[in-house]
Amino acid sequence: MSGNSDDARADAMLRRVRIVLVGTLHSGNIGAAARAMKTMGLTRLYLAAPADFPHREATYRAVQAVDVLEQAIVTKDMAEAVADCTLVIGTSARQRRIQLPQLHPRELGVLCAGSARDEIAIVFGREDSGLSNEEMQRCNWQVHIPTSEAYTSMNLAAVVQVLCYELRMAALGNAQPNEGGWDEPLASAEGMERFYDHLESTLTEIDFLKPTAPRQLMTRLRRLFNRIRLDQMELNILRGWLTATQKAARGELDSDRTE
Amino acid sequence: MSGNSDDARADAMLRRVRIVLVGTLHSGNIGAAARAMKTMGLTRLYLAAPADFPHREATYRAVQAVDVLEQAIVTKDMAEAVADCTLVIGTSARQRRIQLPQLHPRELGVLCAGSARDEIAIVFGREDSGLSNEEMQRCNWQVHIPTSEAYTSMNLAAVVQVLCYELRMAALGNAQPNEGGWDEPLASAEGMERFYDHLESTLTEIDFLKPTAPRQLMTRLRRLFNRIRLDQMELNILRGWLTATQKAARGELDSDRTE
Repeated sequence: MSGNSDDARADAMLRRVRIVLVGTLHSGNIGAAARAMKTMGLTRLYLAAPADFPHREATYRAVQAVDVLEQAIVTKDMAEAVADCTLVIGTSARQRRIQLPQLHPRELGVLCAGSARDEIAIVFGREDSGLSNEEMQRCNWQVHIPTSEAYTSMNLAAVVQVLCYELRMAALGNAQPNEGGWDEPLASAEGMERFYDHLESTLTEIDFLKPTAPRQLMTRLRRLFNRIRLDQMELNILRGWLTATQKAARGELDSDRTE
Repeated sequence: MSGNSDDARADAMLRRVRIVLVGTLHSGNIGAAARAMKTMGLTRLYLAAPADFPHREATYRAVQAVDVLEQAIVTKDMAEAVADCTLVIGTSARQRRIQLPQLHPRELGVLCAGSARDEIAIVFGREDSGLSNEEMQRCNWQVHIPTSEAYTSMNLAAVVQVLCYELRMAALGNAQPNEGGWDEPLASAEGMERFYDHLESTLTEIDFLKPTAPRQLMTRLRRLFNRIRLDQMELNILRGWLTATQKAARGELDSDRTE
């Protein structure tokens, strides 16, 4: 239905997207996810701490997507799989106490098609328990398929299929490549984690964060800054602000200050 | 995400749609298709000459959609399964010599949502050879998922999942961006201005902002925080952080701190 050039244009966008399966329990689902990806033009599969891989069942269910399995990158956890990404989207059926901004699958497609400079990860949790709250907090957005109230639990590979389908539809339709929209490269997930470490230690030092009674403070601040999608210069500004705060708290301000 | 009334309205449309699997070879696919249907709010499954049904593997893959399997109607062929339908849509990856009018999956959803008086069948062929030409000629339309040229062969249950997803999206009245998903009221413009005043004075106090050489610092910080819409609790957290910074800079920390 789509010509060669459509396919090539879609592929260029889809190459920026990795599918990250976290703690997958059933190897068959890994194979079925690989097949779902390849039929939609995605090829980059990351497996964070899979229960059992490689596995005969994965190979069987992948059918002609065995190459996707063979090129899959196995990491020790989700953090390692998304370290160099600038846009991380978690899938979740559950509402969290502190909610991330939510995307409909169709909005996911539009967002990814429009984010021409991002390295994108779409992250899928375990079959039985999904993503942990801590894993979810590494995400910029949460995507949710509006299932029937009668039965909300989709098969893992089926969720991969629907989201990859929406990505492909957006890539083929590719409304407007939002290329030159931003003037700075975006902060990486790894850079953000270093910022959160610095933020946590600084807030502790000025006694705003009490380690014995942290409440939801860091969770809320993560949600706030992940929503912004900081660029690298902004990250540098915030790091500078934190360093200045620490110096002030330690009484290390320059002597020529008036107050 | 969708309220009760959305779900009920969608269900009324989805009740007019039956899923017809013709000559399915792998019983596991029947179970996976039943699960895909039920999560999207469809319940009426017809099995035309299945190779092996009921089957342990179908039950296993259906998980909590066993009721869909139990209520499935087994017929001797496709003709019997669609006999009382007024709108019959065949799925096919192949181009036929005599081509039926073609639908994109999204158009399928729109067509079905708009056909309020029709009894609708969506028909899926065998895993290896699809629908025969004779079976295809019993259809009013043909629907085709635009797969990647690199791998066009989707799993049967995955095709059922994507089409049922599009039916559900159309039934729900299309992707509504989820406005009301936030758990706190948003910050007012006035509240934001007070925050920026507080931010500016604090950054001056810790010597990070130099009034004689402000560069673009406040401009960049405004752009940063304005990019998201802060809620009131987040604004309170940020104000608290600034106040704690000022106290620390003035040496007013509680005496029981260790450093």
